[in-house]
Amino acid sequence: MTRWLEDEELRAWLKLAGVMLKLAPALDSQLQRDNDLTHFDYLCLAMLSESDDERTLPMSELAGRTNASLSRLSHVVSKLERRGWVQRCPSPRSRRVTLVRLTEDGWQVLVKAAPGHVETVRELVFDELGPEDVAALERIAGHIVERIEESRLRSTC
Amino acid sequence: MTRWLEDEELRAWLKLAGVMLKLAPALDSQLQRDNDLTHFDYLCLAMLSESDDERTLPMSELAGRTNASLSRLSHVVSKLERRGWVQRCPSPRSRRVTLVRLTEDGWQVLVKAAPGHVETVRELVFDELGPEDVAALERIAGHIVERIEESRLRSTC
Repeated sequence: MTRWLEDEELRAWLKLAGVMLKLAPALDSQLQRDNDLTHFDYLCLAMLSESDDERTLPMSELAGRTNASLSRLSHVVSKLERRGWVQRCPSPRSRRVTLVRLTEDGWQVLVKAAPGHVETVRELVFDELGPEDVAALERIAGHIVERIEESRLRSTC
Repeated sequence: MTRWLEDEELRAWLKLAGVMLKLAPALDSQLQRDNDLTHFDYLCLAMLSESDDERTLPMSELAGRTNASLSRLSHVVSKLERRGWVQRCPSPRSRRVTLVRLTEDGWQVLVKAAPGHVETVRELVFDELGPEDVAALERIAGHIVERIEESRLRSTC
């Protein structure tokens, strides 16, 4: 028997579907207008910049941190490489591992884009959100991401 | 001066970005596997089915309820029309308004797809989420959707 959503769940679901459909285009639109970047490009550069290991990460690790499939990531990394913002290189430790490194040019692009992007995230998400809601957002969104991961693992077993 | 995100905000943001990047593909993948529908197709059929007015809505109203631009919606409505699931017709009240009506075939497709889709939404979002988190999710996601709308209005003024 189908376990339909309760009224409160349906209301929450329609709002969450709205975020899912509207937030990425809103972030893309600011970054593309001001920096010729998609939000996903930005996320790749930002995750590399935060690596302790000389702004370098294995492809698989970057895929995990950007929530992307390896095939999608590979496509985007090729684009960023053509622009001179990242470089692919084999790992000195294992031939089967490809590393991605943020170049100095890539770092400069990120430094230039960051203030406008962070301002947009503030404006669309965090301004007027109290500390309790910030904590609730982390908890609930983290719960959903975990459930999606678990469900992927089950379906590939 | 850039108002960077606080640590708690950054943690919440990375989780929310994960939901943004992973939830739509997860919903699409179940609906496409089981019903040859995208999540957006499903949302269009569902919103029409809930209209009090003979499963019919003006295009602009359907765009609002599915969080879509008119151009994106128009593209998808054409696809659904070719499959015989919706019909476009001029409004009897105003020549400038186009109505979209869910056909009996479209209704049957929705009835068939609904249980599996709702089960996926339950599994990925609501199972193990308490009533307080459901209320917080509605409040926070609603807040974000409102901010995006307001920011769109400002940028088109």
